[in-house]
Amino acid sequence: MHVIVLGIDPGVANTGYGIVAHDRGRLVALDGGVIETPAGQDQGVRLTTIHARVGELIDDYKPDAVAIEDLYFGANARSAFAVGQARGVVILAAGQRSIRCASYTPQQVKAAVCGSGKAAKDQVQRMVQSLLSLTELPKPDHAADALAVAICHANGAPLRAALDRASA
Amino acid sequence: MHVIVLGIDPGVANTGYGIVAHDRGRLVALDGGVIETPAGQDQGVRLTTIHARVGELIDDYKPDAVAIEDLYFGANARSAFAVGQARGVVILAAGQRSIRCASYTPQQVKAAVCGSGKAAKDQVQRMVQSLLSLTELPKPDHAADALAVAICHANGAPLRAALDRASA
Repeated sequence: MHVIVLGIDPGVANTGYGIVAHDRGRLVALDGGVIETPAGQDQGVRLTTIHARVGELIDDYKPDAVAIEDLYFGANARSAFAVGQARGVVILAAGQRSIRCASYTPQQVKAAVCGSGKAAKDQVQRMVQSLLSLTELPKPDHAADALAVAICHANGAPLRAALDRASA
Repeated sequence: MHVIVLGIDPGVANTGYGIVAHDRGRLVALDGGVIETPAGQDQGVRLTTIHARVGELIDDYKPDAVAIEDLYFGANARSAFAVGQARGVVILAAGQRSIRCASYTPQQVKAAVCGSGKAAKDQVQRMVQSLLSLTELPKPDHAADALAVAICHANGAPLRAALDRASA
């Protein structure tokens, strides 16, 4: 079984992405980076850029699923509103291609990657490096976070597939 | 001077829309209604519906601007996050067609329509009915709110045009 997951850490200024393949227990990073939009630019133009780039990533890598970071606990309404807008166009890009979108809170991602929902940021980065056999720490932060959410989803994939077979 | 404004009250379950034309001091409603998406449906499918319908409205009525309701004061992070997602795909639909999007808080809309940011909902609806010379109160609520934000933008349009001419 071979599963490809596109992980996304959404934001209007910086949307991190990371593409992870899961093949018989081994995880490999296929791509990772950040979609940046300039602060002074019109909101519609910025969201158009994010929507178009995420669409290109889906078309290029044909992921089985998109895994996206959910709201962090303690976010304020104003920042949640802004992140929600970026997240909306990411979910749209997936929905327009009939790709399933799964959401994970930062606590779920940390627990899946480090075994603790309270793991520190540098601990998550070291585990992402180790799990993907990267020669260096993943950078920048938003790309590392996107790889982590992709790993979180990919590691649950064998279990989900087994459950699907069992219930089929 | 003839200005057409598409007003939007965004939400994942119900996105209200209202199209208002402003022609030499007179306001006319061209259309109004609600884009509904079923609660059980996949988020990506729901956002695809909203994005597609708003795009159709823009293509059909060719508005000069889209006016969209901003976050209400006192919203919690969870609801702001959900509304932000719907709002993101509306701003995207406008941005993809190079149509300007303007945001107004509920307080700004109430002040523009009723003269007070604290006006009650039924007072706003009666003023929308009166300003648009409708034979009945505008219904449902989300359509009425969308018409109100369109009026709020349209009524500022002559002033903005004069300022643009003065600074040109």
